[in-house]
Amino acid sequence: MAEEHVVYIGKKPVMNYVLAVITQFNEGAKEVVIKARGRAISRAVDVAEIVRNRFLKDTVDVKEIKIGTEELPTADGRTTNTSTIEIVLERKI
Amino acid sequence: MAEEHVVYIGKKPVMNYVLAVITQFNEGAKEVVIKARGRAISRAVDVAEIVRNRFLKDTVDVKEIKIGTEELPTADGRTTNTSTIEIVLERKI
Repeated sequence: MAEEHVVYIGKKPVMNYVLAVITQFNEGAKEVVIKARGRAISRAVDVAEIVRNRFLKDTVDVKEIKIGTEELPTADGRTTNTSTIEIVLERKI
Repeated sequence: MAEEHVVYIGKKPVMNYVLAVITQFNEGAKEVVIKARGRAISRAVDVAEIVRNRFLKDTVDVKEIKIGTEELPTADGRTTNTSTIEIVLERKI
């Protein structure tokens, strides 16, 4: 299976992640998957949009978007559901 | 063109929007589109996941997800880009 190129979105500024995605494409990746959970989901969409509209315009586009739910353990031993997103960006040319 | 059933996500509690989506399906909608901008994008994913995993399990699923960018005017007359999402939920049975 081809190596998966993934960028996990956290709490850093958006541009950190934009740069990480661009770097992976510049190093030859055909696809880069942007993954995020909870409130970082909005930032994941920002990253995808900035990459494809500003930096890699007409080069990269959205191939697929998947949403889901993950169960995360809480401090008191219970679990809580959190939403997830995966945005697959693909090199077009 | 068939009437479009849309739920716009704002700042209210998630369950308000979950109820709105369920109501539209119960009133006969074949598809309901959840739309959000900026930070509300994460909540839009929450709404879609709660509807399809808890309330309308095995009845409704994600048909399509689209992301985009909108230019919004700022108070001082300039414009700012904000990300958008559209999650199309479809009745399967």
